[in-house]
Amino acid sequence: MLKDHDLQYLKEWLSMQQPHTIADELIRVDSAGMALVFRLLDKGKALAVFEELDPADQQEILAGMRDRAFRELVEGMDPDDRARLIDEVPAKVAKRVLAGLSPHERQMTAALLGYPEDSVGRRMTPQVVALHRNLSVAEALDVIRTKGASAETVYTLAVVDDGRRLIGVASLRDLVTAPTDWRVGDIAETEYVSARATDDAEYAARLMRDANLLDLPIVDSEGRLLGFLTIDDAVELIEAADTEDAYRQSGSEPLGGLYLLATIRLLASRRAPWLMLLFIAAIMTINVLDFFEENLAEVTALALFIPMITGTGGNTGSQSATSVVRALALGDIRPRDLPLVLWREARVGALLGVALAIVGIGIATFFADFQLAIVVAISLLVVCTWAAIVGGCMPLLAKKLGIDPAVVSAPMVATLVDATGLIIYFLTARAVLGI
Amino acid sequence: MLKDHDLQYLKEWLSMQQPHTIADELIRVDSAGMALVFRLLDKGKALAVFEELDPADQQEILAGMRDRAFRELVEGMDPDDRARLIDEVPAKVAKRVLAGLSPHERQMTAALLGYPEDSVGRRMTPQVVALHRNLSVAEALDVIRTKGASAETVYTLAVVDDGRRLIGVASLRDLVTAPTDWRVGDIAETEYVSARATDDAEYAARLMRDANLLDLPIVDSEGRLLGFLTIDDAVELIEAADTEDAYRQSGSEPLGGLYLLATIRLLASRRAPWLMLLFIAAIMTINVLDFFEENLAEVTALALFIPMITGTGGNTGSQSATSVVRALALGDIRPRDLPLVLWREARVGALLGVALAIVGIGIATFFADFQLAIVVAISLLVVCTWAAIVGGCMPLLAKKLGIDPAVVSAPMVATLVDATGLIIYFLTARAVLGI
Repeated sequence: MLKDHDLQYLKEWLSMQQPHTIADELIRVDSAGMALVFRLLDKGKALAVFEELDPADQQEILAGMRDRAFRELVEGMDPDDRARLIDEVPAKVAKRVLAGLSPHERQMTAALLGYPEDSVGRRMTPQVVALHRNLSVAEALDVIRTKGASAETVYTLAVVDDGRRLIGVASLRDLVTAPTDWRVGDIAETEYVSARATDDAEYAARLMRDANLLDLPIVDSEGRLLGFLTIDDAVELIEAADTEDAYRQSGSEPLGGLYLLATIRLLASRRAPWLMLLFIAAIMTINVLDFFEENLAEVTALALFIPMITGTGGNTGSQSATSVVRALALGDIRPRDLPLVLWREARVGALLGVALAIVGIGIATFFADFQLAIVVAISLLVVCTWAAIVGGCMPLLAKKLGIDPAVVSAPMVATLVDATGLIIYFLTARAVLGI
Repeated sequence: MLKDHDLQYLKEWLSMQQPHTIADELIRVDSAGMALVFRLLDKGKALAVFEELDPADQQEILAGMRDRAFRELVEGMDPDDRARLIDEVPAKVAKRVLAGLSPHERQMTAALLGYPEDSVGRRMTPQVVALHRNLSVAEALDVIRTKGASAETVYTLAVVDDGRRLIGVASLRDLVTAPTDWRVGDIAETEYVSARATDDAEYAARLMRDANLLDLPIVDSEGRLLGFLTIDDAVELIEAADTEDAYRQSGSEPLGGLYLLATIRLLASRRAPWLMLLFIAAIMTINVLDFFEENLAEVTALALFIPMITGTGGNTGSQSATSVVRALALGDIRPRDLPLVLWREARVGALLGVALAIVGIGIATFFADFQLAIVVAISLLVVCTWAAIVGGCMPLLAKKLGIDPAVVSAPMVATLVDATGLIIYFLTARAVLGI
């Protein structure tokens, strides 16, 4: 439609679509098109579409805007979305955003930006409804009607005391069904789940999922209410964490944006560091082969099974590493379970090794001879057990050292197991073949 | 506490904890302990804890229960949770569950079980509040007060016509803030997002995330309201899908339960099929090396760089596969983007290949000679490009064929690229070294 300059039709189409659908299409057009489409939207919808976009796309739209429209847009944003935008754009743009704000909105945004990166304080919304414990249900509903419009949610209501300390949580559902003369303090749930503003954002998001909450109250170190983490932000945090883990698990840094929009340079730069590191680490395999070169020259058939043995070790290790990384992410295991995991993986690895060794004997006898087949079988058994232990334990060790366990990727385990697998293979060959 | 038989203290502890915390601890004790703890909980909390558990654990608890307690428990469950339980337990237990239900609850559960596996119909809750469009806001609030107790959510309200066809969605927030004499039909949002009961559950969950919804209305083929998918179930679906992808990406089938509770046999059985398949596929590498054995015997130094070249190919391919699998899962790319992805990955692979080739020349010159270094460098460049293309395109081809793209795992790409990488390496060696 943009290409045909059919603006009337485009405007109609825009008025019928959901903000997230428009945002999805918007990121596929160029900057000029983006700015044009944006001007065709009515103000409320423009804001909704804008909030669906990534900070990078938001920046592009802001760059093409006049001062007045710019100010209106950033003033209308939710404080947590605005904090994220400011966090990720260049300092110059961030300054322009802050300068355009009213004092009240600027103060709210500045407060969020004061919390550590990756903390839930950065992602919470301060615009919540707090009800004093002594209010009656009828008074509380009045407060919700008047203050509710500017709050991000009215379904979870914080119940506070005189010092704005959180003492309970009430749901709008409870409020609507309760007798109107009851006190809010009486219907509030006082055994609630909450998080500190300095807590890790991903931890808070997974806590919400475990406790099936729509909103998680966020408090300061003295228990005073600061805001809520809402479920839509929690879902986004969980998805982003899973994406990061998926990338790290393949030995790559996350893109932080859409695959199809990333430049070739960006894609390569996210993959190059790990790839280069693993490449350098692969020098170990050259060293090992160099060391055993005489044996290899004596029995060239030994070379036939090198990729099969290193490959199988890599595969087994990557299976173990992934099980453990995912279980850590979901909170199913903790670093102190290390001995348990080691013992489990050793047995799983040995079991898989036995199965592969049996098949391996047949294959190696066919391509070489029975003696070499024995070497291959023993090596497979030992390599599988070893790879499973390495793959299972390394993520736990990383976590203990404060490193993201997901960096213990399939490629990293494979590279580490390659060299040791070769040593196991050649030592077995020396012992069995007597070379 | 269980070990010390301090039941009084245990009971107190249980009364203070959140259901999800109790469920977390419960799965770590044996069956006898589970049954005991369960009896100590009051009825409402017992149900809440029970609904937090996996079907496997639920089954264990049910097995130890008397008929009356059993019936009370399953009768109290939400229909969607109950359908999941019946789905995953043996037929005999499923029968006992259905037999224990009241006709009304049995009918609701049977309706959910009628939808295809993995469809959103299985995971929706039928217990929603439907408001006729002609109701006034005051009447609607009365309906919510009376019917709301048995509904899973009252924050999203379905607005229907005489034929129970969904014509809009209203939020409790809008209802509470609207003048009481307005009609529900007037405040309902008629441009809403919905899904069919037969739609894929993961698709519906990601749709909810994109549209930032708390509840997604589910309709039949004629647009009649059937129920809602609620956000807590959507989060669970997304997490489960991400877990499945993570496992598949490492060449393993998902466990479907907690890592620490799985038996060694179960762990091995989830990993063995792919591992064995890839092991058999690795015969290709033996064939290739067998074919080039004379060249290898002539220049034994060629063997030195085999693990480095196959390993680097595997790493590059696994990076590409993961980027594409994740982008597919998040809906950022579609199968028809194949040519685009191919062209992007080819350039990224070549760029990475050039960088590795430069470093590779130095390494290979050090361990062998400059001529062999040229062979290594050319091979690295070609293998990287090829691996990135294979890794990037295979998930898209799988999706086109209706296969889960995540089965195109890092180990699978690595194994496929191993054999072709060796062919590239030896052909380059023949050409450059003239052997």
